[in-house]
Amino acid sequence: MNDQASRPMTPEEEIAEMRSHPRPTLRAVSEGMEKHLYTAQPVLDHGFVRVIDYMGDDAAITQAARVSYGKGTKSVQNDEGLIRYLMRHWHSTPFEMCEIKLHVKLPVFVARQWIRHRTANVNEYSARYSILDREFYIPPAEHLAAQSVVNNQGRGDVLEGEEAARVLEILKRDSNQAYDSYEAMISQDGQAGLARELARMNLPTNIYTQWYWKVDLHNLFHFLRLRADPHAQYEIRVYADAICEMVRDWVPFAYGAFEDYRMGAQQLSGKGVECLKRRLAGEVVTQENSGMSKGEWREFEAVWGDA
Amino acid sequence: MNDQASRPMTPEEEIAEMRSHPRPTLRAVSEGMEKHLYTAQPVLDHGFVRVIDYMGDDAAITQAARVSYGKGTKSVQNDEGLIRYLMRHWHSTPFEMCEIKLHVKLPVFVARQWIRHRTANVNEYSARYSILDREFYIPPAEHLAAQSVVNNQGRGDVLEGEEAARVLEILKRDSNQAYDSYEAMISQDGQAGLARELARMNLPTNIYTQWYWKVDLHNLFHFLRLRADPHAQYEIRVYADAICEMVRDWVPFAYGAFEDYRMGAQQLSGKGVECLKRRLAGEVVTQENSGMSKGEWREFEAVWGDA
Amino acid sequence: MNDQASRPMTPEEEIAEMRSHPRPTLRAVSEGMEKHLYTAQPVLDHGFVRVIDYMGDDAAITQAARVSYGKGTKSVQNDEGLIRYLMRHWHSTPFEMCEIKLHVKLPVFVARQWIRHRTANVNEYSARYSILDREFYIPPAEHLAAQSVVNNQGRGDVLEGEEAARVLEILKRDSNQAYDSYEAMISQDGQAGLARELARMNLPTNIYTQWYWKVDLHNLFHFLRLRADPHAQYEIRVYADAICEMVRDWVPFAYGAFEDYRMGAQQLSGKGVECLKRRLAGEVVTQENSGMSKGEWREFEAVWGDA
Amino acid sequence: MNDQASRPMTPEEEIAEMRSHPRPTLRAVSEGMEKHLYTAQPVLDHGFVRVIDYMGDDAAITQAARVSYGKGTKSVQNDEGLIRYLMRHWHSTPFEMCEIKLHVKLPVFVARQWIRHRTANVNEYSARYSILDREFYIPPAEHLAAQSVVNNQGRGDVLEGEEAARVLEILKRDSNQAYDSYEAMISQDGQAGLARELARMNLPTNIYTQWYWKVDLHNLFHFLRLRADPHAQYEIRVYADAICEMVRDWVPFAYGAFEDYRMGAQQLSGKGVECLKRRLAGEVVTQENSGMSKGEWREFEAVWGDA
Repeated sequence: MNDQASRPMTPEEEIAEMRSHPRPTLRAVSEGMEKHLYTAQPVLDHGFVRVIDYMGDDAAITQAARVSYGKGTKSVQNDEGLIRYLMRHWHSTPFEMCEIKLHVKLPVFVARQWIRHRTANVNEYSARYSILDREFYIPPAEHLAAQSVVNNQGRGDVLEGEEAARVLEILKRDSNQAYDSYEAMISQDGQAGLARELARMNLPTNIYTQWYWKVDLHNLFHFLRLRADPHAQYEIRVYADAICEMVRDWVPFAYGAFEDYRMGAQQLSGKGVECLKRRLAGEVVTQENSGMSKGEWREFEAVWGDA
Repeated sequence: MNDQASRPMTPEEEIAEMRSHPRPTLRAVSEGMEKHLYTAQPVLDHGFVRVIDYMGDDAAITQAARVSYGKGTKSVQNDEGLIRYLMRHWHSTPFEMCEIKLHVKLPVFVARQWIRHRTANVNEYSARYSILDREFYIPPAEHLAAQSVVNNQGRGDVLEGEEAARVLEILKRDSNQAYDSYEAMISQDGQAGLARELARMNLPTNIYTQWYWKVDLHNLFHFLRLRADPHAQYEIRVYADAICEMVRDWVPFAYGAFEDYRMGAQQLSGKGVECLKRRLAGEVVTQENSGMSKGEWREFEAVWGDA
Repeated sequence: MNDQASRPMTPEEEIAEMRSHPRPTLRAVSEGMEKHLYTAQPVLDHGFVRVIDYMGDDAAITQAARVSYGKGTKSVQNDEGLIRYLMRHWHSTPFEMCEIKLHVKLPVFVARQWIRHRTANVNEYSARYSILDREFYIPPAEHLAAQSVVNNQGRGDVLEGEEAARVLEILKRDSNQAYDSYEAMISQDGQAGLARELARMNLPTNIYTQWYWKVDLHNLFHFLRLRADPHAQYEIRVYADAICEMVRDWVPFAYGAFEDYRMGAQQLSGKGVECLKRRLAGEVVTQENSGMSKGEWREFEAVWGDA
Repeated sequence: MNDQASRPMTPEEEIAEMRSHPRPTLRAVSEGMEKHLYTAQPVLDHGFVRVIDYMGDDAAITQAARVSYGKGTKSVQNDEGLIRYLMRHWHSTPFEMCEIKLHVKLPVFVARQWIRHRTANVNEYSARYSILDREFYIPPAEHLAAQSVVNNQGRGDVLEGEEAARVLEILKRDSNQAYDSYEAMISQDGQAGLARELARMNLPTNIYTQWYWKVDLHNLFHFLRLRADPHAQYEIRVYADAICEMVRDWVPFAYGAFEDYRMGAQQLSGKGVECLKRRLAGEVVTQENSGMSKGEWREFEAVWGDA
């Protein structure tokens, strides 16, 4: 073996290698998704998302729906119309017929939020078996936000000058010290070396982990609706945003319906419907005569108020 | 449009059509599975199973495992050994990284058993929307078995001559009469016509339905272990057997491990382990000194007895 | 044993017996639900729903939410306000902390719809082991509806006079004949007797089955939203309606929130929001300038049009 | 309000308060479980497990099974025998009819393993909303183990003298420094104060979190089989052990069957069955003539070899 061959591939070379060998298949192929395959999309400072595999396309959704509705779907003339109908009426099973497998590298505190979505398959890097790398998420200054003063869960203004500098200094210093300690504890140089499954407990949750995550399209949309939402924490939202771009290319009709009927949609309570109808009829509706609590009214007006 | 063009395709032509257009993909391809794609495997008198799509192959299982174990898997030398290790140690998540989508046509009473496996995605033909076909499962004479006299759940000997003839006569007559009634009730010829969602209730459960069924490999193995088992009802077992043949070609290493560690395996209770160890040490162990109940002992001896 | 003791209990006596022995517990108790326990609520002609067990109450929902939000929930002053907030914002996990177990007797064609809700636990009567009773759902004349002419899935007007009579005659005759055949096939009088697992295939899906069904409150609300909806088939809706009455007494705050934010709610697409805002601003919006398809517009106007 | 009333309750007082008000219920009551309710069982240095609620008992398992088997279970004479039969034959649905809700305080790295069991309901303390306490898991010296030299995933001998002291010193110092930094960053004293959802990323995974965790008995047994196993990491095994004690008192028949058929059981592969049968017949079986790989043989002999 010559030197060149023994040099490990760079990530770019590895991707180029994996992308250079198309093979014939009889399965449904999404041209839009093929161009994403294996290509790591950078997220945060050391993270990424990349598509490892997928099953199905827009046509697979309507094909499954037509099994259910049989001759009953004859009148629907095209795939896009049928997909929009299914999304609008919460017919979720045809969307479950598509599947995606992602390779994600992400900070542990993001992974802890992500894993709460239970209807998915996961293989995570195990710090019981293997040694973690020295890679920590350090937020860029423009994302160092203060605690919100109006919302217990959320961020307010961006920290300024010296305070931001102090925070960055702390995060870097503590991350590095924690990793130095981790290395010192597991080292087998002149000592037995602490078990990895114990040593890892010293590492903060801004350290990066990685996993394979596989999910069907219906449950992925549910994930995206919650995590691509402005109320989601920024550090998970950027992953959701990156996945949105891939899904848009994979199943453009389904993604379009998702944008219109989920991301851009508004839920109105029974009281909310009543209030809007009264307004449409010309009545002046205020919190006092709405039947809503102050909290509900504030949220209602945020969408429907004059501002 | 000429006559030939307007003639609907036969199922064989439809399959030939779908199989004639391979397209390039960068995804994992299982050569063994490509040859099954779209080809309906006949099961029972009118049923079938056919693969519509799949995701992953043997290598996808080890690839996911290696994400988890990182450098810790270096010592395992090959994919087959790693897959056998994973199966033996009930590490199920790497098997969840493969997915299969089947189109199945099956009698309703079989569908009722099948659907109890909850971790799967299903789109079933809807008899609320569409009209069912006149297709009923009528067992061949060699599968017309008597109620077991030793087991409340199960079959005994095959029915003989006249009794078998009477049963077949009844099943055919009642199926046809039920379908005649169904047609008469939904007919809009000279009457309003009963709603399909109501009329279907007159049909017996040997009528055929169909669905798309999508499941990951781990859960599929669980299904196969229960349904390809000799204690499963014959009419669902033949579907499981047909699927086994497909899985064997799709992921040969995983299927081999499944055969050895699941289908051919035996579970021994704590007491069973103790009894075998005493036997290996030369002791004569009987139900009386085994600590087992009569039922447990009977099952233990069915595997380990001299017969 | 005297005659009285050997007489089997009537269902009423059995319920009275089960309801006559309260025992002390330290668990959360819902007074409203205790009065439903074991009492069978009749549904359809031979069916019922009865509560066998439950876990949690309104306070259990807020208790779980307060674990999540810790000191962050101090400002919310009462349980009802917090429950309404959770429901409005789709925070579903606290509702998963309540659980209910129902005993349901229902026709097989209803059971087939019901079982599609996968996130629940089920033990169904097995017709492989045991013999089914001669009990069939025969719809009352006022529910014998014609196929809808505007909707492939649905019912139109009620059938009139002779047609209705014909349908009822057919349903009764075929049910009875199917059951006569079932009995004749499994009989061991002068013949071997067909295995139960085979004989059952001759029975139509209006025969009754029964099961224990256990589900958490979040998934129960999802079930009720779909099945207590006017678009659900009447024969499952009456079960959902009966369960609604029980849930209202069990967790009144949660049920109130469910009614307002789910049952009585309206989902507006991004385009729908835009159209309503334009209307509120005084603009005349029609399908042509709405950006919606005809189908979407029809559904939009059904809610927001001048009734 | 006098001083005494305004003093917050100690945990012991809170438990005493909750345990002092039994209320009547018609539901199934497990005497064995009632005595555990609300009582925190200490685990590790700052953690605990306590039962908040439960549904069902041993009788609820057989009751559900009897719905399925109907008259077919008449011959089984008692609850214990039926429960053992169900466990032995992997009839899992009756065990799903029992449910338990636990309040658990545990280190984050343990929570990360625990959450991988997806079929459960969880409400975890949110560090986006609220401030975490300064409580870290510091292992006692006797659990400071070295990395195993035979197993990538596991512990070897306990660390000795100076090395152990160094490790403890590091864990304590880094934990405290990380928490000091956390406090400094979120402080609003003379600065804006970093958002909690960001500041938490600096905390190591030996910090304690807490959650409500609700699961059915079948899935709990699956969790316990994996986590009360000697191969599980010690820090999660102690939680599983504590839960085992509660389940033993809750459903003694089911727990006994679990111990015999799951915890104490051995799985034999097809090849393993063959080898044991040959040994029972007097043959000398070695790895070479066993058909097993070295790894499989080593595991086989660990159970069946001459210890």
